Parts: sequence; C-alpha cells; structure tokens
Amino acid sequence: MRTRVTEMFGIRYPVIQGGMVWVAGWRLAAAVSEAGGLGLIGSGSMKADVLREHIRNAHQATRMPFGVNVPLLREDAEELLLTALEEGITIFFTSAGNPEKFTKPLLDKHCTVVHVVSSVRQAIKAYMAGCHAVVGEGVEAGGHNGPAEISTMCLIPQLVDAVPIPVIAAGGIADGRGLAAALALGAEAVQVGTRFITAVESSAHDTFKRLVLEAADDGTVLTFRALAPVRLLRTPFARRVIEAEQRGATVDELRRLLGRKREMRGMSEGDVEEGQFEAGQCAALVKDIAPASAIIERMITGCHNAIMRVARFTDS
Amino acid sequence: MRTRVTEMFGIRYPVIQGGMVWVAGWRLAAAVSEAGGLGLIGSGSMKADVLREHIRNAHQATRMPFGVNVPLLREDAEELLLTALEEGITIFFTSAGNPEKFTKPLLDKHCTVVHVVSSVRQAIKAYMAGCHAVVGEGVEAGGHNGPAEISTMCLIPQLVDAVPIPVIAAGGIADGRGLAAALALGAEAVQVGTRFITAVESSAHDTFKRLVLEAADDGTVLTFRALAPVRLLRTPFARRVIEAEQRGATVDELRRLLGRKREMRGMSEGDVEEGQFEAGQCAALVKDIAPASAIIERMITGCHNAIMRVARFTDS
Repeated sequence: MRTRVTEMFGIRYPVIQGGMVWVAGWRLAAAVSEAGGLGLIGSGSMKADVLREHIRNAHQATRMPFGVNVPLLREDAEELLLTALEEGITIFFTSAGNPEKFTKPLLDKHCTVVHVVSSVRQAIKAYMAGCHAVVGEGVEAGGHNGPAEISTMCLIPQLVDAVPIPVIAAGGIADGRGLAAALALGAEAVQVGTRFITAVESSAHDTFKRLVLEAADDGTVLTFRALAPVRLLRTPFARRVIEAEQRGATVDELRRLLGRKREMRGMSEGDVEEGQFEAGQCAALVKDIAPASAIIERMITGCHNAIMRVARFTDS
Repeated sequence: MRTRVTEMFGIRYPVIQGGMVWVAGWRLAAAVSEAGGLGLIGSGSMKADVLREHIRNAHQATRMPFGVNVPLLREDAEELLLTALEEGITIFFTSAGNPEKFTKPLLDKHCTVVHVVSSVRQAIKAYMAGCHAVVGEGVEAGGHNGPAEISTMCLIPQLVDAVPIPVIAAGGIADGRGLAAALALGAEAVQVGTRFITAVESSAHDTFKRLVLEAADDGTVLTFRALAPVRLLRTPFARRVIEAEQRGATVDELRRLLGRKREMRGMSEGDVEEGQFEAGQCAALVKDIAPASAIIERMITGCHNAIMRVARFTDS
C-alpha cells in the first residue's frame, strides 16, 4: 500500500503503532517496524537514560525505520528529544503540548516531525510550525484526550480539509475495517494504540492485557475532564473517579484523587484497585494476544477485504 | 449501489434521512425519497393528527417508499404507530425505548421494522425482538444519545459482529467520505440527520440552519448526562447547562433547568437564548443550504471518489 505517509517513512503499510506509556518499549516498536509498519517507542514513561537503552535495543533488533513519541508537556521533554537525537532517531511524534518550540530545531536536524492533534485549530498550528504530518486523534482514543471530545469520524475529514499535510487517523481503529474506514475519511495512515496493548511484544502487565481482552463496548470511560481528559478502562479506580465527578468534586479534590504514579501502578504493575489503565474504546474489538506481525497482517488483509466488499456494493 | 438495506426498502442509494423532531416533515421525507434515498417523517414532535397530515402530504408528493420514525418512550407512541398504519405506512424506524412491545404487532402487519441502538446489548435485543435491521448510532450523533457514549467508529464493527441483520450507521456522517467509511466498517447504509437540517426542504427554523452552518469542530456538546444524554449546539442555553453540570447540579436542578418545550422553542421557533438545538458533531462539515437531492447526489459521488482513492492506495 502506498500513501504520502508510507513514502514519508519508507514503510510498507500505513500502520503506525502508538507510542504508549508503559506499553511501547523497544520490543514492540522493533516488532512493528520489522512487520512493515512504523514502530514508536513511547518515551512518556521513561527517563532519558531508559529511553537511550530502549533506542539502542531497538537498533539492535531491527534495521527498519522506527521513531520516538515525546509528550512535550513533560518537564524533561528537551532532554528526551536530545537523547533521541544523539541515538540517531530521525522520526519524532510529539504530543500533549505546543509544537512551536521544538519542531523547528528538529527540522533543522533533518528530522521528520509529526504532531498529535485533536482539533482543527491544533492541526493548523502544527502545520504552521512546520510539521510533516498530523495525527488526528478522536475522543475514542485511550489515554489523554482533547477537551473538545471530537470523534475520529468527525475529526479526520475536517483535518483533511484544513491542512495540506497528510493526516494520520487515531482513535477507534483496531482492525482492517477501521483502517479502511480511516482511509475513506481521507487519512493516509492510522496510528493504532489499543490493539497493540495485547501484542506479545508489548510491555503492558499481563493484568492490563487481560483487562483489555475482557472490555465490553462500554468498557472505557472518559474521566478527569476538569483536569485533562483521559480515557480509562472501567476499573475500581476509574469508578471512584466517576463517583467523585458525579457528586461535583472540585478540581483540587480530583487532583488529590489522581495522586501520583497511577499509570505505572496500573499499566506496568497491574494494580487493579489503585492503578490507572489507559485504553481506547475499541478495546472491545480486541480479542486475543498475538505477535505484532500477526496483528498487522490481519489488519492489512481485513482492510483489503473491506475495500473489496464496499467496491462490490457500488458495482451493481 | 446495492446492499441488503437498499434491497429491503427498494431504494437506489443506501442513504436514510433521520426522522428528526421539528426538522423532518413531509417535505424533507418526500424530497429524500424522490432523490433515491429513504425519507423518514419524524413523529417525535407531532400529535397523531399532525402526523396523519404529514403522511398524506408525503403520499401526494412522492410514490417512492418512505417511513416514519417513532420514539417509543412517548406516551402516545401506540397512537402514533396506529395512525401511521392507518395511513398505509409499512416502514417503521423506532427509537428511544424498548423494541419488544411494538415490533411483533408491526411484523404481523407485514411492516419493516428498524430499531435505533447505541450498544451491542440493545442491538441483540432488537434482533431478538424480530427487527429487520438496526441503526447503530454513535455518540457524535445529534439529539438523544446512549449512556455508554460509544463512537460510530467503535460501535459499527461490534454490531456487525454481534447480529446477522443489516446495520445502518448513524452519527458523524455528513458527506461521501463518511458514507464510504461507514460501509467499510461493515454498515450497509447510513442514517444521516445533521446534514439534512440545512436541506431546503427541512422545516428547521432559519436560525437553526444558520447555527448549523456556523458550527465549528467543537460546536456541539453532550449535555444532561445525568438525565438522558442529548447532544446540543453550543448556544446560550447549552452553556447554562454546562455550567450547572460543572458545579455539580443535582438531577432535580437539571430537570428544572431543562423545563419544557425547549426543543420546539429552539429548533422550530429559533429562540437562541432559551431554546435547545439538537445537532451532531458533523455540523462542522455542513457548509451550505441545498436541496435534499443535491445533498444525496454529492454524497454518492463523494463516496465513489473515496472508494476509488482508497483502492488506488492498495494497487501499488
């Protein structure tokens, strides 16, 4: 398959694996890139020295292109970016923050920069900052979310109309039907997170993988709207947040409830009571633990089947 | 185009016009059916005698098939259904209520019955009740919404996997790209509401049409989660609701705030301060007032173009 995004990265399939905290280490990123997609190491849960180790291991594991996701709101964002540059990374996906500060320096070093956005205004800002593409992330996506709560179905066509750079669709895409739908909306690739949580190579705790496999259609919920919206699996902790929000908890109360290290305790350590587990609504479509290569192959086959099915509707 | 849904209704295109309150009268339904889609009269804002008048006028205006949408939670739902039957209606779209009570009697009269659902459980219930198809409505849809807030992108593939009857996708579909995406997800038709608010033949107040044309990507908001979730345009009334919810208003307070006749005051009378305007998130994709026939023609052309574009990605 060939789009502007596959050309941009020199990859075989328009499938990018989301750089998820506590899930997307070097094993997952390398496996995805080896399988023809674009793997991303998620630096959001790493210190600089840990990131360096992951990049080195990934370079050992594959000669295919891979990248790093850096949340720009982190205090040590610059250190993470510099570390990645030192280790030879040229593909950067930036998220959660202003793309203006770091895009230009990365472009000066001939890097490819993609920014994650959740609204038209943010996409225009990323384009003006010089980004090569944007990831448009719908409200169904796991983890941190935009305040406008725009769904993938509504967001992608608006972004395609608003900016001339390629749009990568994220949020709600777990199989080949979702990939085909995203391409129909005008996207030129997809960024897939949740489906890769249960990849064999993911570093998610086994309990996290099990929770994703068990998630039903209403298995996730958007919480902490008053702080920064985040989509979580409906675990005991998430239910406590929902109760607090329903009784009108203040921002301070919510901040205390959130506390610290919930992400690590959940996704990495598997603490169902106190941890926080970030996953997208399409967890309901995830039914097995499989190697990243099988996940991608099925997605591509499913996409071809979906396109052929739709084309047959229109032949008659 | 041919799918199980176009065959079921004997229509040319897999486009069904949502039976929206205060918007979908006989003029809109007849125009859509004349243009090759399936028009629906929205009985949710009508008394039985008004519905009878609309059906008679629609029968005068077109010999093509059209149907009626009936919200089953209305106290006079049975009277509306009986009136429609008396006037020769054989296509029923039921929503907002339990499909078990009325589906069987309608089937006994050889009607086609489609129920609107927002979760897998509801779809299975509709299938078990004997419905011929389901409309799967994502959280981006305007007006009343399911409590689980599942997006169209996530909901449709799950419904397709869960029930053997055809699935019609609703929520977020305003152009040909959305139609193509819905078909790729496994839907066999779409139900389109918001795009038809600004149809020439819609009975929406001119102010309502203008508000839809002006809506940006964040132009709608899901309100009244504690009562029954409803997606509204961000008008002064909607903002008062948001404020009340953010300060933790009780269910009773919200009920008082909702009051009565907000829908009529907004959508039919154009009262921006006190009225309620129901529209989907894809209002941001609606850019003009056009005849229903032009809306459908563009949607079909756009769908073909999207399919061809995607097919080209995969040829290389």
